[in-house]
Order: sequence, then C-alpha cells, then structure tokens
Amino acid sequence: MDIVEFTPETEQLTWTFGGAAPIRRVKPGSVMRLWTEDAFCGRLRSTADLASASLNMPFVNPQTGPFYVEGAEPGDTLVLHFVDLTPARTWGASATIPFFGGLTSTDRTATLQDPLPERTWIYEVDTDKQTVGFQAQGSDLEIALPIETMLGTVGVAPAAGEVRSSLVPDTFGGNMDTPEMKAGATCFLRVNVDGALFSVGDGHYRQGEGESCGTAVEGSMNVVLIVELLKTPGPAWPRIVNDDYLAVVGSSRPLEDAWRAGQVDMVGWLGELYGLDKLDAYQLLSQISEVPLANVVDANYSVVTKVPKRLLPGAKVYSDIHQHLRDLAATLS
Amino acid sequence: MDIVEFTPETEQLTWTFGGAAPIRRVKPGSVMRLWTEDAFCGRLRSTADLASASLNMPFVNPQTGPFYVEGAEPGDTLVLHFVDLTPARTWGASATIPFFGGLTSTDRTATLQDPLPERTWIYEVDTDKQTVGFQAQGSDLEIALPIETMLGTVGVAPAAGEVRSSLVPDTFGGNMDTPEMKAGATCFLRVNVDGALFSVGDGHYRQGEGESCGTAVEGSMNVVLIVELLKTPGPAWPRIVNDDYLAVVGSSRPLEDAWRAGQVDMVGWLGELYGLDKLDAYQLLSQISEVPLANVVDANYSVVTKVPKRLLPGAKVYSDIHQHLRDLAATLS
Amino acid sequence: MDIVEFTPETEQLTWTFGGAAPIRRVKPGSVMRLWTEDAFCGRLRSTADLASASLNMPFVNPQTGPFYVEGAEPGDTLVLHFVDLTPARTWGASATIPFFGGLTSTDRTATLQDPLPERTWIYEVDTDKQTVGFQAQGSDLEIALPIETMLGTVGVAPAAGEVRSSLVPDTFGGNMDTPEMKAGATCFLRVNVDGALFSVGDGHYRQGEGESCGTAVEGSMNVVLIVELLKTPGPAWPRIVNDDYLAVVGSSRPLEDAWRAGQVDMVGWLGELYGLDKLDAYQLLSQISEVPLANVVDANYSVVTKVPKRLLPGAKVYSDIHQHLRDLAATLS
Amino acid sequence: MDIVEFTPETEQLTWTFGGAAPIRRVKPGSVMRLWTEDAFCGRLRSTADLASASLNMPFVNPQTGPFYVEGAEPGDTLVLHFVDLTPARTWGASATIPFFGGLTSTDRTATLQDPLPERTWIYEVDTDKQTVGFQAQGSDLEIALPIETMLGTVGVAPAAGEVRSSLVPDTFGGNMDTPEMKAGATCFLRVNVDGALFSVGDGHYRQGEGESCGTAVEGSMNVVLIVELLKTPGPAWPRIVNDDYLAVVGSSRPLEDAWRAGQVDMVGWLGELYGLDKLDAYQLLSQISEVPLANVVDANYSVVTKVPKRLLPGAKVYSDIHQHLRDLAATLS
Repeated sequence: MDIVEFTPETEQLTWTFGGAAPIRRVKPGSVMRLWTEDAFCGRLRSTADLASASLNMPFVNPQTGPFYVEGAEPGDTLVLHFVDLTPARTWGASATIPFFGGLTSTDRTATLQDPLPERTWIYEVDTDKQTVGFQAQGSDLEIALPIETMLGTVGVAPAAGEVRSSLVPDTFGGNMDTPEMKAGATCFLRVNVDGALFSVGDGHYRQGEGESCGTAVEGSMNVVLIVELLKTPGPAWPRIVNDDYLAVVGSSRPLEDAWRAGQVDMVGWLGELYGLDKLDAYQLLSQISEVPLANVVDANYSVVTKVPKRLLPGAKVYSDIHQHLRDLAATLS
Repeated sequence: MDIVEFTPETEQLTWTFGGAAPIRRVKPGSVMRLWTEDAFCGRLRSTADLASASLNMPFVNPQTGPFYVEGAEPGDTLVLHFVDLTPARTWGASATIPFFGGLTSTDRTATLQDPLPERTWIYEVDTDKQTVGFQAQGSDLEIALPIETMLGTVGVAPAAGEVRSSLVPDTFGGNMDTPEMKAGATCFLRVNVDGALFSVGDGHYRQGEGESCGTAVEGSMNVVLIVELLKTPGPAWPRIVNDDYLAVVGSSRPLEDAWRAGQVDMVGWLGELYGLDKLDAYQLLSQISEVPLANVVDANYSVVTKVPKRLLPGAKVYSDIHQHLRDLAATLS
Repeated sequence: MDIVEFTPETEQLTWTFGGAAPIRRVKPGSVMRLWTEDAFCGRLRSTADLASASLNMPFVNPQTGPFYVEGAEPGDTLVLHFVDLTPARTWGASATIPFFGGLTSTDRTATLQDPLPERTWIYEVDTDKQTVGFQAQGSDLEIALPIETMLGTVGVAPAAGEVRSSLVPDTFGGNMDTPEMKAGATCFLRVNVDGALFSVGDGHYRQGEGESCGTAVEGSMNVVLIVELLKTPGPAWPRIVNDDYLAVVGSSRPLEDAWRAGQVDMVGWLGELYGLDKLDAYQLLSQISEVPLANVVDANYSVVTKVPKRLLPGAKVYSDIHQHLRDLAATLS
Repeated sequence: MDIVEFTPETEQLTWTFGGAAPIRRVKPGSVMRLWTEDAFCGRLRSTADLASASLNMPFVNPQTGPFYVEGAEPGDTLVLHFVDLTPARTWGASATIPFFGGLTSTDRTATLQDPLPERTWIYEVDTDKQTVGFQAQGSDLEIALPIETMLGTVGVAPAAGEVRSSLVPDTFGGNMDTPEMKAGATCFLRVNVDGALFSVGDGHYRQGEGESCGTAVEGSMNVVLIVELLKTPGPAWPRIVNDDYLAVVGSSRPLEDAWRAGQVDMVGWLGELYGLDKLDAYQLLSQISEVPLANVVDANYSVVTKVPKRLLPGAKVYSDIHQHLRDLAATLS
C-alpha cells in the first residue's frame, strides 16, 4: 500500500477546483496523510482579528491538492474514504463577515441595509474532553461543544473546462459544507478530467446544518484518507456512503433546486440498487428520506438526501467498496 | 381535568384555517381525544383508486376542528401537547397526483411537460410489528417500514382576517408536514383571533423529510392531546419543544426563505433564553442547529430549525410547560 | 346602460378578497364610477408622517367593493374594462416601511440586519403638466415625472373558500401591482364564487416595474370601469388585453415561478388562438414575448408575459369584447 | 484608428470566459469587424437536425475571442460599443433541447417527468423586409417577424482565477441573453485580469424577453464594435448605455436575486450621477425603473434594470463616452 504524506507550503495552497497543476501523483489504493489549512488561512487567531481586515479576498478557503490519480479518466468514479480527521491546532475560529452568510443580505440577495457588525469567535480545543469552547462576547455564557470534525470542501476538477472558486459547491463537489463529510464516510465523485485532480480542505471542528453565519468552527486539520478508483460511470452529483446511510449532495440555487437535484439522483440510485421503477423509487424515497441542510451560505446552496440502510434490504453498493475501505482503515492505526 | 371526545361526522370536516365556526368550546387544561380523517378523505382504499378520479378537489386534507379555546385572545400563546397518535385504520395510502409533489412540475413551478403517471400505494398496518408495508408495483419488492406517527397539519385561524386552505402552512401553522409533530411534542402557536380556533388533521403513519411525492403514508388517526394557554406573547412562527429539542418551523417560498424565517426566530429565542446578543446567538446557532426539511411540496415549503437541549445549559422554556404536560400525559393511560 | 356610482365611507372599506359581504349588486354591462382610497388610507400627508407610526397594520391597501355581479357563476369569466383612472387628490405619497419592500430583508427573506430608515415622500400633482413631483430629501434634486395612472389591486373572491389579504396577488388577481392595469385595459378573471365579488383599489399615479421599495406614488383614484361577464371558462391566471398587447399576470414565489405560471398560460392561450400545438406555441412565445416585472415586493411576486398584437395575425380574442368595450367607453365622456 | 478584422477558424472558437489564450491584441479605440458562429455551431440547418443528435456537448455557444486589450488592468472599465450587428447567414435556427429551457424541468429544477419532445425550427431571413420567418410544424401558420439583432454573450475573463462556460452569465457578463445588447448600445464591464480578455458570440436575429425555450433565433453574425478603456473603477455588474436608457444586468438564481443585484447597483449608480443618498435613489428607482427579463434559462438567470434618460436630468455618464462612440460609429459606414 502506497503512503502519501503531504503538507502544503503556503505558496502551494490552491484556491480553485480545476486550473491548478497537480501537486502529486497518487495511485489508486494509496493512503494519504494530509494537512489542510483553515478557511481563514490561519489569520483569525484572536477575537481582535476581524475578517475584513485580516483576510485577503479572494484568497480564502485554501485547498490541499490537486492530486492526480493515476488511471482516472473522464466518466470514472473517484472514491475517497475518510479514515481520520483530527484537529491540527489547539483552536478553531468563526466569524461574521460583511455581506456573507445566511442571515444577512449578500452580493446576490442584495439589499440596501448596512452589514451586520463583524465579530470573531475563538474556540479553544479541549483535547481530553474532545470539545471546543463557545464564548459569548456580549455576555458571560460559555458552552463546551463536542468536537465533530468534518471537511467542508472535497472536490475534483469541473467538467467543460471550467475552473471554480473553492467557495463554490456543484456537481464536482467543492464547498458542500455538509457534516456528513466526516471520518468513516466514503465519497464518490464523477471524474471530469484525466487524473481527476481532487483537492480537500476547509476543515471544521464542528458545524451546524446550514452553516448559518457562513463559517463553522474553522480549523486546520490532519486528514487521513484512502483514494480509490472505479472504472464505472460516476454519479451526476456527489454521493456519500457511511455505515448507516446512502447520501447524495445536491447544490444549486434556489434551495429547492439543490434539493430536487439530489432527490432525483437518489431516485435513480434506489432504482438501480433495488430494481425499482421510477414511481416506486419516488414513493419509497418519500417515506424514508432524511434531508438535513448542508449550507445556505455558499455561491450554491447544498442539501443532503440520505436514506437509512437499516430500512432497506441489503444491496451491493459500488461493489461494497465502502466496507472494504472501512476494513482497510481499521488496519491503519 | 376536562375530557373532550370528538369524532367529526363527514359533514363536520373543515377544509380551511379560519372561516369555520367552532365545533366545540374547550377549557385550557382539557384532554382531547379526537379522530382525524386522512388527507384523501378515506377515498384511496386500493391501488385501483387513483387520485384524480377519487378525490374531489379542493376537498382534501380535512381537519378536525376548529376548537374555541376559552380565554384565548390575539397575541396569546396556544399550547398543544400531543400525548398519543395511533393509527385508526389498518391501512394507510400514498399516491402520485398529477402536477402535485416535489419532483414534478406544478401549477407554480409550471412546465409544458406531461404529468407523471398516477399511482396509488396501500400500506397495510402490522400492529404487532408496528410497521407499514411498502409494496412496489413495478416489481416484487416489499419492505416493512416502522410506524412513526405524526400530524401533518396543526394550526390556528390566521391573522388579518385571512382564511387559508388546509393545504397551506404559514405563520399560523397549518400543513407544515414535519415529522417533529409527533407524540411527546408540545407545539406553541400565536393566537390570532378570540378562541384561537385550532384544528388538527392529516395524520401520517410515517413520512420522509421533504414529503417528496407530496403524500406521506396518509392515515386516519386517533389523537390524544392536551390543550393549554399561556397569556404571554405568542411566537412569530410555530415552535415545538420535545424532550430533546427546541424547534421552530418556518414556511415560505423559495425554500431558503422558509429557512431564513425559522432561523431568525430561533436566534431571537436563543437570545431570550440565554441572554445572548444577536451576534452571539447567530454564532451559537451556526454551530449547533439541526435543519431537517419538512416539506417541499405544499403551497409554502417548510423547514425545521432545531437545537439540541443536550448541548445547551438548562433553561426555563415557556415556564417548563412541556415537562409539566409530559408528566400530566403520563397519568392518562 | 346601468350607471353605478359608489364612494365608500371609511367604515365600508374592505381589506380582503373574499370574506366580505357585497356592497352593491351590479348587472353585466354596467358602467361604474368608483372612488378608491390610497394604500396608506390617506394617512401619509407630509414627509413627517412615517409609515410605522401612521399606519394601523394590517389595515392597509383598502379596497372598494366587493361587488356582486349578477349571473356570475364559478368558472365564468369576469371582464373589467378600465375606462378612466384620474387622481382624486392633489398629491400622492410613497414611503419606505421597515422590513417591507424589494431591497430590504423582510419577514420572509429574513436577516438579522437593522431595517432601512423610514422616509416618506410626497408627490404634488401638477394637473396642467400631468406630472407628479419627486423631491429628494437628502439633496435638492426635484424631478417632474409624468402621471401614468394604474390600479395596483384588482381581484375577485378566491377559490376553495379562501380569504386573502388585499396585499396578496394570486390566481384571483389581487395586489398584482402591474403598470399594465391602466385606462384602456381589459382585465379577465376567472369567477370562483357566485357573483364573482370583485374589488378594486391601490391607485398609483405612477410606478416603476418591480415597485422596488414596495410603494408606488400611492394616491386616491377616481375610477371609471365597465363590468362584463362571459359565460365561457375563465383563465387560470389574470389576463389583460389592450389595444397593443395580450398579457397574462403570474404571481408566485420564487420570481421564476411567477414567470413560469404566466408563460405556461400564454402558451395555452396562443395555442387556442392560432391552432398551434404546444411546442410551436412555446417556440413562438420564445421569440416574441415581452416580460416586464410587476412587483417583487408583495406576499407573492408578479410577472407579466405579454405578446404584441402587431406581430401576430388577427384573432378573435374573447369575442372581441375588448374592442367592443373600447368603443363603448368612447361614448361615455 | 486601428481596424481589427477577425473571423475565427473552427478550431479557434472558444467555449469559456477565462482559460483561453488571447487570439489578438487590440488597442483601445480600435474598430473591430468580427464574425461570430451561432450557438449551435451552425449544425442545425434543417428541421431534421435535432439538438441532441447534432450538438456535441459541452461545445455549444462558441465565442469569438478572447481579445487582449492593451493597457487594461484589473479594476478598470472595459467599454464595448456595438456599431452594427448583421446576420451573416440567410437563416437562423431555434430548437427545444431535452431538459434545457424555461418551461421544462432541467438538471437543477429536476423532476422525474419525461423531457419535452425535440424540435428544430429554421427561420429564413428576408433581407428586403428585414424579417425572419416562423413556420409552425404542427400546423400551417407562418409569421414574418422583424429582425432585431443582438448578441446573447458578451464578457470578460472572470475574477478569482475562475473559468466559466460560455453558457453562464455573471458579474463578468457572459451569456446574459438580453435584447438590450444591440447595435447602438455601449456595454461597460469591470476588468478582472490584465488585458480584460473579452469575447463575444451567440448572435440572435431576434429573441423574446426571457428566451423561454432556451434558444433564440440563433444565427451567425457580422459584428462591428469599437473597444475602449476607462481607467476608472469598473461596475460590479455589466452596464449598458444607449441613446434612451441606462441599464444594469444582474445575473443569479433565484430570479429575484438577479433582480436585487441589478437594482442595488442601479441605486448606487443613480446616487453617484445625481448626488442622491441611498433612500432617495431607492425611491426614485421605484417610480421610474423598467425591468424586462433577459433570460430565465441559463445557469444563472438575468434581469435588466433600466432607467429612461428622458425622465432624468442630463448627467455625464462615463465621461459621455457613449455619445462619443455613437458619433465615431456614424463615421464608419
């Protein structure tokens, strides 16, 4: 088994999906030990560091990658199994940013109102308790919240020669900001260019569904993943399999279109897995789907459609590669 | 304690929130044992009963009520605690209806395409196993799904003299179609007219989040609830408290507006409960909220914003009436 | 020809479509000379009258009516031809209202930002020049703008027993806020209840497309109209015919759904008028439709789809009743 | 005055904004005589040529360019004045394409319905009458429609290192599909990269507002334009000035966000031109704006906000460069 270790230098960070030269070539089956910078480039380190003064737009949400996967060709299925996501710093940060986020007007949902005030929160990591500490700034309230690490951004180079900012989620994955992208999850992405050119980044020590203010508990992350490749047709939208669920992530605007895209893909998936016609799959989905929001703050919004395995008959999903990778991951530590 | 038992005759069913004379007067503190007809008026009894031939539009989604709550005045808080929701028939039904549902064009999301074919599914109730049976029609697949009863529709008369179809959710509650409206939940609604004039209906034996095809496993329901009244200001949007969560249900279109409305209400609620200023409450919400969709199929879409009590300090929510009603409910059976 | 003159007393004003008893019965063919109060109930008379202090919510946008049209039955087509719309006061008013309008957050497009400041503008009417005077308040700029009178609100009682606030546009018409509703226009509405129960109100001395801030140059209006009735099936959405155009007004949210609804109705209308199949009508519409926004500020948004008669072969539209009413109107002054 | 003539070879066509090497360098002040291929790459030549068989996705909507404008730096204002747009073929084409267009479900507004049937229409150009001929296929109707040439696509390289498909409109311009982009119009775009790297394409012999079916009367075009550069800050969104109007084109989803973005930009523009504060500019816009839709079919939707010069005091707009270019253009023929 190949082991690839990579920690980018600052000047090696990338800011787009597509448009960057591969930083490493990796073989399918490789285990990768990566380090990701946080979405603020590590620049918010105290409550005095406000976003508009500290960040250098558009250089936010840096990615580690892209990686060229040997043998990957357009139409294939790239498989990324997340073995471990561990905070790489002793603190995370969150912030309000002018005209960015879900409960403020933005450059698109534009209004004439003044922006919300800027504020930065620093969350200290308590490694023993596995918590991060929320500290109110307008009062004394402090709450220790469980660490639940995830990656906000996982994606490949887009189709049609496009290059997209790492702030955008779409069919190529990208900034989906879903808590489902956690250790133990296996992500499936359609390959659009030779080598797939995948990147990861935007570690969150925890995040609510919807990522309301536009930023989670953002933190640098140590990432262990296994990369695999299936020479079978890749999905229209990113899919995630974990021990309990099958999931699809749709991303678009308005929010109902993000939902529709993911739901229609899931209807097709259920149809394939269980030999259901379109109407039966639609009916079954209607009674079993769980639909947590991922984000309502990015350039596209993201919605997860997931179905619980416990309600469904056993099925061979992508050649059982999720279980295979779980087993392999168990041998690593 | 007053006990109110009521099973409507067919001609007593109501089809709107507002606009109907109260069918009973009830005192705060009353226990009510009600029966609700299913959304199809019990007319879909076999797979041969297709919606467009069997239903008599707009007479669908009939409500049991309205009930006049003595002492309720505009601005007050109506409290409905659901003690028990038990299927009142041995079968439930679901159906595709032309140009109705989430994955079809509709009269609003209008396209020139033909409608999806109509199909009706009948779900047999297995009382022992507490399941309903999904039976595919295009194949042999059968799946027993756990019964998880809920009420699709709970609401009061709207403000501003409006009368709304029982198919619509909005600030007055109504057809929110959220699985959170289950036994053990306490629902808080702002009173808009003297007596509140609340109704309930649209029992579901189970439903996926989003209610994709527009219909859940629709079934007649035996409902036990306790009605209470607080002479404190009612919430802008329907709120739900259960043993584990505080929740708000926002309803609007597009879907992001349903989300925004509920989220802003929750920011205010967290602020009141914990003495947080607006930005701190926004930040806390961003890291802890869970956001399951309720429906993307009604005249307005509905999104739930909920926060887990386990992550929050103890707080006196609506004078701890939820716990009080849980205790009272425990004495009833 | 019957002449009906009616100026409501303050206590006769109505605030809903549906839910109010008819104030007069009129025969088809009647000429009606009506007076409408402005949307602010005449309470904004100087720049010192700010909306939140002066208005008594929800009592805004008062309607003159409803009128019971003899012989009108559900499914029929009500025809209202606007002969003349003349300012009934020497001034109009416009205002910003907290959390109301298109370029601010609202109760639905909810954000945590502060509202825009309130401001009221008074527009003096210059009868000779037929202008209203815009006066900036933060500077000295004054601009005389041509008077182009229109009615913001024209509608009938809704279907399905609903009662809707006069602030809402939908299939029943209502607060569509389109500049197309002007003298010389003939409006067609589907009848939902016996007598149709139509009302008019919300006079605008002029309005931009979209009604950006939520209020036009609001003014009391003298309205002359002719009411007619066709015992042919009424349209799904309000239609307008004038000397130059056929138009449909769709109202929904998001804005694309308002557009889709009106466009699909127009495809059907073109198909009927010219014997086109669905695809040919779609194609023709794609090359000739003009699509001005009406409002992006009401409870539903409204979009006009109109096609220029000059590009189309002659066709008998609603039995040429528009021309008939134009001719009749010419005899009235 | 430099004259640049350029007709791309097939292999020189480009499919993105950004991401392509400049094909020519041009000096500000140059007159350019260009040829553009149609959006179908000239492959739809008879009604038997259906889109899905004839087109080679994603290679549609080819652009002529990009052109490197000497001296253009990020933040500058690129000025393109369209002198003449003349059909370069004797026929145009339009088509329905599966799951593409405004009145069908798409990959985003995804449903489970079957696609609309494919159909192609060929419009013969009548040079004498300056018309294109619509011919129904399901009936005998033929209508000669006036030629009103425009360019669907005009744009520069995007910011933030992005590369976007030529099917997308956004802040960089691109596939806005507005009939305002016609001869006599001057377009202002913010420069994002050295040299601006602008392209043009997607000629339409005519188009309805909204471009309902997703395709106009698509045709190859001879384009004469003058390129200029202003070393003043470029606009947030594309702006257009013609003899009668000032316009802004906003592009986003949902449609109301496209509108909001353009409206807020126009509020700022009116403020600068006339010394109005934000509220006064908002008020004035509310009474004078005209808001035709551009398209509701692309990856982003586009809405035009325009204000008529006749209602406004004279103002020096971008140093009166529009008038200067009009005068210059008059000397060219």
